[in-house]
Amino acid sequence: MCELLGMSANVPTDICFSFSGLLERGGNTGPHKDGWGITFYEGKGCRTFKDPEPSCQSEIAKLVKAYPIKSVSVISHIRQGNRGRTCLENTHPFTRELWGREITYAHNGQLSNYKDLTTEFYKPVGNTDSELAFCWILDKIREKYPKRPKNMATVFRYVAKLAKTLMDKGVFNMLLTDGVFVLAYCSNNLHWITRRAPFGKATLIDADMVVDFQKETTPDDVVTVIATRPLTNDEQWTKMEPGEYVLFKLGEKI
Amino acid sequence: MCELLGMSANVPTDICFSFSGLLERGGNTGPHKDGWGITFYEGKGCRTFKDPEPSCQSEIAKLVKAYPIKSVSVISHIRQGNRGRTCLENTHPFTRELWGREITYAHNGQLSNYKDLTTEFYKPVGNTDSELAFCWILDKIREKYPKRPKNMATVFRYVAKLAKTLMDKGVFNMLLTDGVFVLAYCSNNLHWITRRAPFGKATLIDADMVVDFQKETTPDDVVTVIATRPLTNDEQWTKMEPGEYVLFKLGEKI
Repeated sequence: MCELLGMSANVPTDICFSFSGLLERGGNTGPHKDGWGITFYEGKGCRTFKDPEPSCQSEIAKLVKAYPIKSVSVISHIRQGNRGRTCLENTHPFTRELWGREITYAHNGQLSNYKDLTTEFYKPVGNTDSELAFCWILDKIREKYPKRPKNMATVFRYVAKLAKTLMDKGVFNMLLTDGVFVLAYCSNNLHWITRRAPFGKATLIDADMVVDFQKETTPDDVVTVIATRPLTNDEQWTKMEPGEYVLFKLGEKI
Repeated sequence: MCELLGMSANVPTDICFSFSGLLERGGNTGPHKDGWGITFYEGKGCRTFKDPEPSCQSEIAKLVKAYPIKSVSVISHIRQGNRGRTCLENTHPFTRELWGREITYAHNGQLSNYKDLTTEFYKPVGNTDSELAFCWILDKIREKYPKRPKNMATVFRYVAKLAKTLMDKGVFNMLLTDGVFVLAYCSNNLHWITRRAPFGKATLIDADMVVDFQKETTPDDVVTVIATRPLTNDEQWTKMEPGEYVLFKLGEKI
């Protein structure tokens, strides 16, 4: 299994604090040693840092932890491989272009009988069930919406329907974003929290680290964090139900 | 204008030395301050580091310079923007998936009347002439080769023909790779050098740095470096002619 981390915010926000907690689970406080990745959106562009090395040892992860890249939409993943060997092409998140937009996705879980997911347009580069499922989702979106619809929320609701089909094949916790919306789909394990004024302090579970969000934010900031398991032990995270999805737009649940 | 850097090698090789020279041109010894990027292939996967910040100041560039990522195919670019503003989505290299392979591209030059380059399948995310030309090339390949041909060299020769068409619209120096082949297309300014045993020393033009390749290599290593302008002042670089292309496979010109 793997762990997911996502962020949706109404102002460019760094994710150093949450990412620091996640990283420890990549071979230190957790067994997810088969690589890690993180994608940041800045405008319509995005950039991904990834490494097939365990995140707790990765030089690149250290940079990402220390260097505050500010973004309104982030997806991250640490991997404990099941389907597909440990290598760069099997490392999440995956990004593909659709209608001139970068779509990014990461998956936690495992699928069975997934070989019947055929794709025409998008082909996986690696050999994970996860990337194949992503290509299948994109193919389906493209089939239903040959042009980018004005109301992108409808596309994400359609993706949630597709995710339900994939969940019938196994475990399918997923994060998917176009840089504006972040979709969280829960198969069996996903939590989220929205932080807004009045901000308080929070303590990481996996590292000896406390942050006072009041010092880091302005009163109008709204920042949602989504994670497989709660990252802090002194805040109230919402546990999602199997088959439930939540769609966030710039920090707010819609 | 911008500067290009590419590498093709028969064993995974780091590009720290050449990249160190290029970086200096990104706002220090050269005017290319509108961002930079570099893509490394490892197996079928690739990873890109990019930043709209000048490379000579970039924290991420410092990491790439110091942390030896070994690869057989690398493409890098520093940008002095002309078409399209300075932002992440306009930062080279660009990568898209085709037939389940990652194709990466960077362009140096400027096109006119490029709005007639229409694409069906691949759509640009940013608004540069460069990314549009890349999408157009990929669309054309896909049209001619709906499935991946066994002989990939024929595809690269077709790309060189397409590049000729683009050169008719302005200046079009280009590097394009699938991780195995690296194509260098010269419109007006591109140089390359192949290093093999017996290896010697080389001195960077743009930084106070000398490398003794004999200490860094084994006798069977073959490493080609392609750059807009020679990066060293004590080696013999081959200057390419306008309209000329060279195709490299794992270090060797083919």
